[in-house]
Amino acid sequence: HHPVALITGPCQLESLDHARMMAERIAEACALTGTRFVFKASYDKANRSSLDATRGLGMEEGLRVLDLIRSEFGCPILTDVHDPSQCAPAGEVCDVLQIPAFLCRQTDLLLAAGRTGRVINIKKGQFLAPWDMSHVAAKVVSTGNENILLCERGTSFGYNTLVSDFRGLPTMEAMGYPVVFDATHSVQQPGGQGASSGGQRQFAPVLARAACAVGVSALFIETHQDPDSAPSDGPNMIPVDQMAGLISELRAFDDLRKKAFR
Amino acid sequence: HHPVALITGPCQLESLDHARMMAERIAEACALTGTRFVFKASYDKANRSSLDATRGLGMEEGLRVLDLIRSEFGCPILTDVHDPSQCAPAGEVCDVLQIPAFLCRQTDLLLAAGRTGRVINIKKGQFLAPWDMSHVAAKVVSTGNENILLCERGTSFGYNTLVSDFRGLPTMEAMGYPVVFDATHSVQQPGGQGASSGGQRQFAPVLARAACAVGVSALFIETHQDPDSAPSDGPNMIPVDQMAGLISELRAFDDLRKKAFR
Amino acid sequence: HHPVALITGPCQLESLDHARMMAERIAEACALTGTRFVFKASYDKANRSSLDATRGLGMEEGLRVLDLIRSEFGCPILTDVHDPSQCAPAGEVCDVLQIPAFLCRQTDLLLAAGRTGRVINIKKGQFLAPWDMSHVAAKVVSTGNENILLCERGTSFGYNTLVSDFRGLPTMEAMGYPVVFDATHSVQQPGGQGASSGGQRQFAPVLARAACAVGVSALFIETHQDPDSAPSDGPNMIPVDQMAGLISELRAFDDLRKKAFR
Amino acid sequence: HHPVALITGPCQLESLDHARMMAERIAEACALTGTRFVFKASYDKANRSSLDATRGLGMEEGLRVLDLIRSEFGCPILTDVHDPSQCAPAGEVCDVLQIPAFLCRQTDLLLAAGRTGRVINIKKGQFLAPWDMSHVAAKVVSTGNENILLCERGTSFGYNTLVSDFRGLPTMEAMGYPVVFDATHSVQQPGGQGASSGGQRQFAPVLARAACAVGVSALFIETHQDPDSAPSDGPNMIPVDQMAGLISELRAFDDLRKKAFR
Repeated sequence: HHPVALITGPCQLESLDHARMMAERIAEACALTGTRFVFKASYDKANRSSLDATRGLGMEEGLRVLDLIRSEFGCPILTDVHDPSQCAPAGEVCDVLQIPAFLCRQTDLLLAAGRTGRVINIKKGQFLAPWDMSHVAAKVVSTGNENILLCERGTSFGYNTLVSDFRGLPTMEAMGYPVVFDATHSVQQPGGQGASSGGQRQFAPVLARAACAVGVSALFIETHQDPDSAPSDGPNMIPVDQMAGLISELRAFDDLRKKAFR
Repeated sequence: HHPVALITGPCQLESLDHARMMAERIAEACALTGTRFVFKASYDKANRSSLDATRGLGMEEGLRVLDLIRSEFGCPILTDVHDPSQCAPAGEVCDVLQIPAFLCRQTDLLLAAGRTGRVINIKKGQFLAPWDMSHVAAKVVSTGNENILLCERGTSFGYNTLVSDFRGLPTMEAMGYPVVFDATHSVQQPGGQGASSGGQRQFAPVLARAACAVGVSALFIETHQDPDSAPSDGPNMIPVDQMAGLISELRAFDDLRKKAFR
Repeated sequence: HHPVALITGPCQLESLDHARMMAERIAEACALTGTRFVFKASYDKANRSSLDATRGLGMEEGLRVLDLIRSEFGCPILTDVHDPSQCAPAGEVCDVLQIPAFLCRQTDLLLAAGRTGRVINIKKGQFLAPWDMSHVAAKVVSTGNENILLCERGTSFGYNTLVSDFRGLPTMEAMGYPVVFDATHSVQQPGGQGASSGGQRQFAPVLARAACAVGVSALFIETHQDPDSAPSDGPNMIPVDQMAGLISELRAFDDLRKKAFR
Repeated sequence: HHPVALITGPCQLESLDHARMMAERIAEACALTGTRFVFKASYDKANRSSLDATRGLGMEEGLRVLDLIRSEFGCPILTDVHDPSQCAPAGEVCDVLQIPAFLCRQTDLLLAAGRTGRVINIKKGQFLAPWDMSHVAAKVVSTGNENILLCERGTSFGYNTLVSDFRGLPTMEAMGYPVVFDATHSVQQPGGQGASSGGQRQFAPVLARAACAVGVSALFIETHQDPDSAPSDGPNMIPVDQMAGLISELRAFDDLRKKAFR
């Protein structure tokens, strides 16, 4: 079996220096348990709640930073794409292209991403059932690319609230693709702070443990050295100095799940 | 007061001849009650459930057809845009640009649409609360364009089901924008037929009556001469030969609402 | 056709004098439009959010008061029952016995209520689909009593929120029973004030209008001379001095629905 | 720390011989891991979907059977009560009285149960938020009885579907009461088979693992020698011959949670 991998990083790129510092601290946190990680950061937050919110470095500068991180740290890189035209350039730098949840039904984006041949991490829309994702994956498969990850990040549950339905993990795994659990966005409270989304950081480790016990191939956990002053997703990111302990805990549940009961 | 207007047409453009035939039949159905209508059709269905589903005529040919319909019938035209690059060309032909529900948080699309100066009909995402729409509208307003319609089209309610929360109509109206009720997509059953969405056509008139009693500026009702063989949204479109009767009924509820109790 | 009837009264019995005053004011409000009303009040609030909340006069004293109201005002009486043993005594006084939503699956309560031969108003549980109510009604029918009303009062929608699905009204009507729309509890926010439920009084008339346009046999609207100081359901009751105007408005929508489009 | 305990047994009492056989097989399944169990069976299924469904042995005979099981097997006994009058007699025989989810707001039932001094297992209503349970528990506490368990058994999520929100477990634990996760009813599909509820047995172990990783004091798992022919809850009960393996797996996750990360 493969131990659970980690997709992690700051929500958005702030600067080359910041990305370097984060990658270094993440590498340290993962080294203790030999946990493989994919460095994740967004060059553009294209769907913020409010227009006034910070959007990031932009594609060109962002991809340059991500490329440097990959060279310096030797880790695979994940970023999210928002438009078919972004897929080819992002695919030249990144190992994994991520389809945002709101965009998971946009056929042209899925096709353009698939054509890069990169791994495609598709976030399940908050408005979709787990079983609907087979049709979403099929759009990528039609390009000849079967390197697909399916990612649970919460489902709409009334207003301004998401719920994690853990039955969805085995349901999506049965489609033949590795499943990722996004513990950061699953505890988001969309629109919960009016002009921005709130979050319940304290529940991210709780749900991540549950996901490991259920069984997943990777966890998606955003982190920051000072979440409360991060430009986005602060309320639900884990402080980076807590990551080593959290990873160690999650690895234990993952080991138990995969060694003993598979 | 202004009587309720109708946004109507076939879900997707099939051909010039088909669009002409539909526009003619719609014009007849509306003439009896003097109901103003906006002709709606999509040149591209960019987010079908399945890759195998028909997508439409494409932007160039589609806009040509829509331009001809506008010239021949003298009616305003609405189409939906899926990408910032589509807004300028669509805005040259169409009076109303529509932001699809899944895309209602995509900042660049909202800005590009707003910059055309056209009326922007923003569908409320199935994953958003009505009060979240003020931040969505503000993105368009930032371009100097306040010609905004806010459109209710159902909210996620468990899996493969939408529910219409009629408290949302006055909540959005209080933001200062005319409110549209989309009776066609509110009775959609997303993913309800596996590779395509199902629908409950029988409830579209029911919910449209409710919306008129609550109070709306416009109704969005897709129609087709033979819904069961339409390339998309067949299960929830109204047969065009029932439109005149339905419009007459809805106008009566709208009149009562606006004349007597406003 | 039968014009829409009204089930109305204060949420809970406070005293004989209060019940008399309310019945008098309700009779006046209904007289203007010739609207038939059923006087509703509870002798016991058996499922308050918090133990500290007022429960009411108790069954014996409560039924005595209700009996006097019936004699003095000549109006039918509705009260809710919470236990099989309450059905026979309540049935001797009241014309309609109401099954609370939380209790709509309790077989013995339904059977005991049915056996009184009175009209049974069954509130659809917040946890049930409209189509599940046919099995609920069948329990009452098994007693030989087919005098059943099915009442929509909101469905669970995330936490502390209800939503009114107006597709449920024709769905339940198709079972062959008159359908009631409870506008008061449909705008309740269960647990929304911590130790008690909140409410959105301003939406009760909105949803009641919608229900009339959809088509119902009766409306359930609780009222009070001073809702903000009422011992229960204050946040969602209508001030009694607004009832005449509201009834007149709702009757107009009901007339339109039943005269013109049935 | 205390290892996770098990509340288990057949959904409903079928006969003394059946209860004996089940208790024996459960005792064997638990002995391997030294897992403490509470024998659970209902003497009356008071809220079946349909009137035609089997209800059980009745209170008098049922309590006699449960008393014998306790004597013979030396295990604590849990049964559910549906009416204040049932609490005293049930409390003479049983160690734990269970408040059904639909009835968790019925004040008199909670008070009567509390007054027995027994442990009270309160199932969270499908219509309640986890934080609403503090007011429910307070009703029992008012009787001087603080032996309370709070039990998660799924929350309404659209129609005919429940979802397990694992954030609810730590939320309820923070109220100071041991938390139980009911894996059997959390995978129920209420009304999912028309006249009876369906279920997704395959997900019960999945959610039970998740609950152990999150952290619980007890698991509630119904079992039967032949679930598909059981008189109730067949679609979601675990075959008794799979219980030993399941318990062993769940104990491992529980141990990891409580030893390593508490």
